[in-house]
Amino acid sequence: MLAEIITIGDEILIGQIVDTNSAWMAQALNAIGIRIKQISSVSDDRNHILNALKEAQERADIILITGGLGPTKDDITKKTLADYFGVDMVADEEALQNVIRIFAKYNRPLLEVNRQQAMVPANCEVLNNHNGTAPGMWFEHSGKIIVSMPGVPHEMMYMVEHQVIPKLKQAFKLPFIIHKTLLTVGEGESFLAERIADIEDSLPPYIKLAYLPKLGQVRLRLSGYAENEQSLQSEIDAFAAKLTERLGNIIAAADDIPLEKALMNRLEQQGQTVSVAESCTGGYLSHLFTQHSGSSATFLGGAVSYANELKQEILGVSAQTLAAYGAVSEQTATEMVRGALSKFKSDYSIAITGIAGPTGGTDNKPVGTVWIGVAGLGECVVRKFQFGNKRQQNIERAAISALGMLNTLLTAPKTEDK
Amino acid sequence: MLAEIITIGDEILIGQIVDTNSAWMAQALNAIGIRIKQISSVSDDRNHILNALKEAQERADIILITGGLGPTKDDITKKTLADYFGVDMVADEEALQNVIRIFAKYNRPLLEVNRQQAMVPANCEVLNNHNGTAPGMWFEHSGKIIVSMPGVPHEMMYMVEHQVIPKLKQAFKLPFIIHKTLLTVGEGESFLAERIADIEDSLPPYIKLAYLPKLGQVRLRLSGYAENEQSLQSEIDAFAAKLTERLGNIIAAADDIPLEKALMNRLEQQGQTVSVAESCTGGYLSHLFTQHSGSSATFLGGAVSYANELKQEILGVSAQTLAAYGAVSEQTATEMVRGALSKFKSDYSIAITGIAGPTGGTDNKPVGTVWIGVAGLGECVVRKFQFGNKRQQNIERAAISALGMLNTLLTAPKTEDK
Repeated sequence: MLAEIITIGDEILIGQIVDTNSAWMAQALNAIGIRIKQISSVSDDRNHILNALKEAQERADIILITGGLGPTKDDITKKTLADYFGVDMVADEEALQNVIRIFAKYNRPLLEVNRQQAMVPANCEVLNNHNGTAPGMWFEHSGKIIVSMPGVPHEMMYMVEHQVIPKLKQAFKLPFIIHKTLLTVGEGESFLAERIADIEDSLPPYIKLAYLPKLGQVRLRLSGYAENEQSLQSEIDAFAAKLTERLGNIIAAADDIPLEKALMNRLEQQGQTVSVAESCTGGYLSHLFTQHSGSSATFLGGAVSYANELKQEILGVSAQTLAAYGAVSEQTATEMVRGALSKFKSDYSIAITGIAGPTGGTDNKPVGTVWIGVAGLGECVVRKFQFGNKRQQNIERAAISALGMLNTLLTAPKTEDK
Repeated sequence: MLAEIITIGDEILIGQIVDTNSAWMAQALNAIGIRIKQISSVSDDRNHILNALKEAQERADIILITGGLGPTKDDITKKTLADYFGVDMVADEEALQNVIRIFAKYNRPLLEVNRQQAMVPANCEVLNNHNGTAPGMWFEHSGKIIVSMPGVPHEMMYMVEHQVIPKLKQAFKLPFIIHKTLLTVGEGESFLAERIADIEDSLPPYIKLAYLPKLGQVRLRLSGYAENEQSLQSEIDAFAAKLTERLGNIIAAADDIPLEKALMNRLEQQGQTVSVAESCTGGYLSHLFTQHSGSSATFLGGAVSYANELKQEILGVSAQTLAAYGAVSEQTATEMVRGALSKFKSDYSIAITGIAGPTGGTDNKPVGTVWIGVAGLGECVVRKFQFGNKRQQNIERAAISALGMLNTLLTAPKTEDK
């Protein structure tokens, strides 16, 4: 079963927003065995939308459309869909009541443009929008299913989870698609490929292996396509086991989870906690941890000690150290991580101090110089990294490198075990 | 001049990664007057890539392709391009030297798969990759330009900035596209539309107005297309001035900049600083500030006081308050923001404490309950918000609401001025 995604909106094509809806919908559909053939982003332009619909309908059985359903003049998706199907626009009573209800709830006057949101093409089945005023629309046309949804992510997500997925499951007997991902840390793509070439060569044609490199990590993804779930699952598991055996301790997780989540899972199993002292990463590492539900079980929090005064005030870094060695130094990183450990009373702490750039570098400490310390249970490791000159990238690489160091500290045999 | 973007990779179509490259490339091309007609994401599949190329070439003059150039077996872009153009693969000496140089730099043995990275279709002009091993490729074919680049964002970005953009400027006489964006805060899309309907109706056909709503903000974007840069710029400016006059104080910035950046600009002009005390946002607000270069001029840092102990240790919230009212309460938010102000010695502080969810809610304090305090220069405002049940969304909405409150505090007449 093949689907396509069409996202509509000039804001995507001028790069003002990143299309995150497509990845989310792709995951949701893959999980029920529907493969995405293509994702297309097109402008708020009638002919272009019509052409995209025509092309998608030639390739796929299901088309999910988002965007262009707002109340303003640049939103033309509904009218274009009515033209595509050759039907009139009609008022939908339930959608109108939803609009009225929402405006009443927020005690706002109902404008004519808001009433227009209840107008839909005559051949659609309305999908109620529980989080906004624009209704979703479900069409069945020439044996294909076309679904139009708002572009606001949480409105679309709720609609997909609660209405679109259940209806798709009813409409089709779906095949099975299984993905299995292993997260590896600290080894490059080509080295991995060389180490597992024979396993890769032995894969049957209906199981593919993909390498997904990102910031010092490589995800290995096995994807299988079949009619029979059971044998496919065991085959995938067997190949995953072979890969795991071969790659030993560079595997940080046997699931498609982020590195920080894998570390938190491990800490939670061990009943341990972690805190942070962030300078150049400025809260990004904390955000990585706390974006995950349940993070409070292991992540205590920490300091975003951006200014030197906060390094002293919160972490107890000495003014002398800062004056003698500077904020970006082995000594400061060491005092930061030890300060976090003692002040926040966590089992492990991570400290990061560096020059994210693009300005602020010197000859001795160019942009991209980052000192990272990890400490806990009697161990303390402080390392220097030299990244590039792109700010956002330096922030991300510093955070991931710090997580990599914590992973190593957690994996390596402890002093008392040696 | 029209361009299309094709991103290649199964990881996009199963939703494992979000395609951020396209938005970045779209911005870069728009800035030099090249409009993006369509963005398509396709799988690592020969026929599908060929079909996407054919369709894109029918619509556009320029095709930018990213992805599928890695050393592993699932990366088939290069071979498919050679087939598309009907040419052989040849070794490029400069690309090979680049691969050798990079492997020597990192002191790693050169594998056969790495050598393969220097093989390119015979009709291409190689674009050197300064940040990785996979060369970019520039093709001129049937009057169209096709560029294939690595999917790793920073490799692609460097290549676009330093090689593709200059070459495109040489190849075409480009028209002008001008965007002008106004950032508004605190008013819904339809109300805005109603207030400025007459201005919108008076726009000439070559200037479009788009509404881009996001989390309590609406960006108004004027886009003009013309041959003559000068008159278009002054026309756009005139319409922007009309909109600014009409919308008065809900405009937070006259540029397409994020809200936190607009606030930091304002604080910097006033020589003032800000600090934070984050609980449920867990570092996200700090990250919003510190992702911007130059943020250290106004953002001092703060506490990610996730655990109650850290609220006490870092911010001086009293154990009594926490016991009597709980961590998510007006009282705790007030003590957090006052604590941040006095400990971190900033002019303004922001405190956020709430239940991000999806678990942890109670009848009295359901998931999505968030208390936000902003304080500074003798003022202190603490407000309760009730968001939904999606964690990431609650984190983002809490952070943006906090910024909105700071914006109001900065905009409102001060007590002493009244």
